Amino acid sequence: MLIALLPGDGIGPEVIAETRRVLEALSLDSLHFEEALVGGAAYKATGHPLPPETLDLARRADAILFGAVGDPDCDALERHLRPEQAILGLRKELGLFANLRPAKLFPELADASALRPEVASQIDMVIVRELNGDVYFGEKGMRKTVDGKREGYDIMSYDEDEVRRIARVGFETAMARGKKVCSVDKANVLETSQLWRDVVIETAQEYPDVALSHMYVDNAAMQLVRNPGQFDVIVTGNLFGDILSDQASMCAGSIGMLPSASLDSAQKGLYEPIHGSAPDIAGQGKANPLATILSASMMLRYSFGYASQADRIEQAVAKALARGARSPDLGGTLSTREMGDAVLAALT
Amino acid sequence: MLIALLPGDGIGPEVIAETRRVLEALSLDSLHFEEALVGGAAYKATGHPLPPETLDLARRADAILFGAVGDPDCDALERHLRPEQAILGLRKELGLFANLRPAKLFPELADASALRPEVASQIDMVIVRELNGDVYFGEKGMRKTVDGKREGYDIMSYDEDEVRRIARVGFETAMARGKKVCSVDKANVLETSQLWRDVVIETAQEYPDVALSHMYVDNAAMQLVRNPGQFDVIVTGNLFGDILSDQASMCAGSIGMLPSASLDSAQKGLYEPIHGSAPDIAGQGKANPLATILSASMMLRYSFGYASQADRIEQAVAKALARGARSPDLGGTLSTREMGDAVLAALT
Ligand SMILES: CC(C)[C@H](C(=O)O)[C@@H](O)C(=O)O
Ligand SMILES: CC(C)[C@H](C(=O)O)[C@@H](O)C(=O)O
Repeated sequence: MLIALLPGDGIGPEVIAETRRVLEALSLDSLHFEEALVGGAAYKATGHPLPPETLDLARRADAILFGAVGDPDCDALERHLRPEQAILGLRKELGLFANLRPAKLFPELADASALRPEVASQIDMVIVRELNGDVYFGEKGMRKTVDGKREGYDIMSYDEDEVRRIARVGFETAMARGKKVCSVDKANVLETSQLWRDVVIETAQEYPDVALSHMYVDNAAMQLVRNPGQFDVIVTGNLFGDILSDQASMCAGSIGMLPSASLDSAQKGLYEPIHGSAPDIAGQGKANPLATILSASMMLRYSFGYASQADRIEQAVAKALARGARSPDLGGTLSTREMGDAVLAALT
Repeated sequence: MLIALLPGDGIGPEVIAETRRVLEALSLDSLHFEEALVGGAAYKATGHPLPPETLDLARRADAILFGAVGDPDCDALERHLRPEQAILGLRKELGLFANLRPAKLFPELADASALRPEVASQIDMVIVRELNGDVYFGEKGMRKTVDGKREGYDIMSYDEDEVRRIARVGFETAMARGKKVCSVDKANVLETSQLWRDVVIETAQEYPDVALSHMYVDNAAMQLVRNPGQFDVIVTGNLFGDILSDQASMCAGSIGMLPSASLDSAQKGLYEPIHGSAPDIAGQGKANPLATILSASMMLRYSFGYASQADRIEQAVAKALARGARSPDLGGTLSTREMGDAVLAALT
């Protein structure tokens, strides 16, 4: 199994380094690693955030472990050269349309959440976010209005096939869990959302055992604070999913804890922490590597079918937390490396 | 001063009725009321959610006090006949482009928030949301793709004048408060946001005393949970403002508590609670009228310049809460009418 390691920018290299150590400690002869540049780091070295060699490695690999991209030095570049284009490009080029973001509070971290413990402890959901469409990938640009004003525009859209395939991922995910899907849209304002809602309702026919509900995105943002325990699986579009999954992750404690998987239709996947490149703390050993380590666990489970090894990693993370391992985002003082050490110690 | 009362749907009539009682109790001879149908209620009576008489009254009035619109009976109607079109139409027709949504925890309600009291008590911000542009009002529709699939689409856009005028409202609001503006966008993905950010930065030149920062919307949704006390004024577009302001309101306790003002360039305004029509509890006397009563207080302050009367209402609300008045959303058992009674009692 070839794993493409794409550390990227900011804290990406630090969290990927710890994750690699954890994977290597499993001593699985079948795992091989190859590393490549991505994001601002790739731009600085090669002039492009997603160089052909990197895309090629990503295609050849059986799974991709991704750190983070985003670099303030690159803010003034033309859009197609910015670090973010690397992750958007990988998602699109590899057809990684289904982003799974589980949000669950580790009981050990009950006091790390800004929510009351009795509210936060109820959180146990998966957000299924569509990744290949929506306003992210429609035509966009700057233009002049008839009276000469600058105008920015972006076309939002979904077609029925795009909605159907992500809806199915949502329903399948719910079948393996609590059998409840909440589809989030803004159908009272957006036609894209109306089509979304219509197709989700049609697709629900294939899953008579799943209870389907619908919620407007503004209400969903509210309910994720008020009563996040009500959700089992949320299925939503690219833009709303971006917002709600970050929000949910924070409700579940720290953004430094939550992994994600981005899958194609054959379970090939890119695995990455939900957090970004955090340039403000990059290179200081302050980043929490657990979200990336947990992403590696998702990789073993979803792309390689190594469920018991995936469990081992998750249990080691829980044990390290139970033993008191805390990086700064969790209110502690351990460095990135020390957090990695704590997981390694718990693993063996 | 003519006040247009537009109760609308669901719990709208109940909360408007209590608010009218409170305004009448001020015994201001200058206030006059006229009521009209709006939303699903107007559609059922006249075939249109915003009948010409209602729009005419709204234009004639010095201010508009609005309940809520939204009615599940109308979900299957064509978009232009749905209740929501009434509020969107009023905002657009009257040029109400600036939506001010203050979010602050009433200390009496520290235990109503899902956030930890020490986090929730820090909240004191105003969200300034643009209301006349964005993906809300761009071209939209259903079409067929080249290969015959159904597709929904909506065009998102802002031009520089639209951004500049709302940015100014944001900066002015901050000048009268903590002198900090956080502009929220998704400039790493959207051209509309890139234009937004460029123009906000340009406009900031006019306000050298205000500290400007920028945040991506996904991060903002996270920060509103993690550390909402960091925000003074948030300025953002129509769609992101819709999501973040509902989220912020919940962080500050209950959605049943928060008022809003939607202003044109001459401070004429429409005042409404942030909550919706809540069809599930309509007609049962369970709605909390305080958000609407506080909206009336904003009306007295912003549109009529009656600052001391506005203060009187706010103090009466605080006193009623301090005396223990709690509707179901606040964990109590008082009815809508009893909540109104509690405010009236505190007023005199
Ligand atoms: C970096 C950015 C383009 C990306 C997104 O918006 O999808 C990120 O926020 C994420 O959620 O993975
Ligand atoms: C009813 C709906 C169209 C409206 C909006 O999205 O603006 C509401 O959610 C609001 O925030 O006032």
